[in-house]
Amino acid sequence: MAKKVLIVYAHQSSRSFNAAAKNIAVEVLTAQGCTVEVSDLYAMGFKATATAEDIKGDLKDAENFCYLDESKLAWEQGRLSDDITKEQSKLTEADLVIFQFPMYWFSVPGILKGWFDRVLTNGFAFSQEKPYILQTFKDKKAMLSFTTGSPESMFCTIGINGDINVTLWPLQNGILHYCGFQVLPPEVFWAPALTAAADRKKMLARWRTRLQDLLEEEPLSFTPLDRFDKETFQLKDEHISEEFGLSVGIHLSNPLPSQS
Amino acid sequence: MAKKVLIVYAHQSSRSFNAAAKNIAVEVLTAQGCTVEVSDLYAMGFKATATAEDIKGDLKDAENFCYLDESKLAWEQGRLSDDITKEQSKLTEADLVIFQFPMYWFSVPGILKGWFDRVLTNGFAFSQEKPYILQTFKDKKAMLSFTTGSPESMFCTIGINGDINVTLWPLQNGILHYCGFQVLPPEVFWAPALTAAADRKKMLARWRTRLQDLLEEEPLSFTPLDRFDKETFQLKDEHISEEFGLSVGIHLSNPLPSQS
Repeated sequence: MAKKVLIVYAHQSSRSFNAAAKNIAVEVLTAQGCTVEVSDLYAMGFKATATAEDIKGDLKDAENFCYLDESKLAWEQGRLSDDITKEQSKLTEADLVIFQFPMYWFSVPGILKGWFDRVLTNGFAFSQEKPYILQTFKDKKAMLSFTTGSPESMFCTIGINGDINVTLWPLQNGILHYCGFQVLPPEVFWAPALTAAADRKKMLARWRTRLQDLLEEEPLSFTPLDRFDKETFQLKDEHISEEFGLSVGIHLSNPLPSQS
Repeated sequence: MAKKVLIVYAHQSSRSFNAAAKNIAVEVLTAQGCTVEVSDLYAMGFKATATAEDIKGDLKDAENFCYLDESKLAWEQGRLSDDITKEQSKLTEADLVIFQFPMYWFSVPGILKGWFDRVLTNGFAFSQEKPYILQTFKDKKAMLSFTTGSPESMFCTIGINGDINVTLWPLQNGILHYCGFQVLPPEVFWAPALTAAADRKKMLARWRTRLQDLLEEEPLSFTPLDRFDKETFQLKDEHISEEFGLSVGIHLSNPLPSQS
């Protein structure tokens, strides 16, 4: 079966490094027989703010508007705005989702944050009662592919920005793993703006090579869900190491020191 | 001297818990003699996307648009859009900035991410060449005040979400400390939607109490800048512990294990 790929792409310019990375992904994956769809957020003028306008028809409680509740109800009743519904359809179809963006302020640009806020609707992408457990996306892979402003040397345990995996935790764990995706290792393009043209080409060549076998890659490992208590979502006693807390230990393939 | 406070507020509803928290801050700080300004992002219809429309007049390189460079130049030449300039003026005036928002996807809502992306302009809020070092905001305090969807028990070292300080690292270190603010400890309202009305009132009462002395609070401590090499922004050898890397160690008042 031909695989379906969705690239959610957030750069303003078609001549940017991010555009080049996106174009290479389209080219290589298409050549492999994949069907590739691109959501070009700036070109689409994608709405980045979660508002009542995302819901068609009457609100449940307009006076005390709660996006989490209203969008869940609208999703259940098919009353989400067309732009959200369209992105959700693409997501439902996809076997692999690549988020291609320049890192802005240690995270995704506002327009992509808006995509997460609006498209990953309560009920559709996650269950409040059963976080991390909804099976909707369990057969899908997702990954971050991004450029940084800072060089790699600043994003390590002795660098002033801290380890890149800490910075990626809210995105990779908090969004992708939370929604049940298999999370592929990120593709980090370190500071292309500070890099010589020849080396930028090498970065893109490495990406091209990686894309050949991307769909066969092993996802990142997260602490298995069955190690957590089903009520408290805390590690069961038998899995708590004496020295360390465990849950975010996967950052560095090492556990974190305990809080005490 | 009366202090000036800016509250950057991101909730859609004036009857929300976040609105209540914002209103209490306005009330208590005003009663103390502070001048309080609120940027009510949804009410303002604040633009959340960083685009060429943020720049008046000609672009330096429209074909290969780079927001970081174009916005820096526009800031230097007074050609940023009026909505950005207005927010920058408020920021320049403020002694304290409170960001009041519901946590969306382990971070700020898209509309507030857009505020960071657009208002904290290259040159105005930070120097690419001298990250963390620009003195512009050094006498200003800033803090996050937010509601969560998950209870506190999920946001600790043995909780499935991991320690809240890891989730806050990109915001508190990557944005606020990077721009040179003194970062006050966050005010976290744990899962008010899952909390009984009486306990929600207690949360707000505690916030009211805290606000009395907020301006006198000690900021969070980050690894002092002089411990990092000025070229590489890595810890100097004499500050690297044998067992642990240090830079993100402030998460838990403990260093992180090394990568090896």
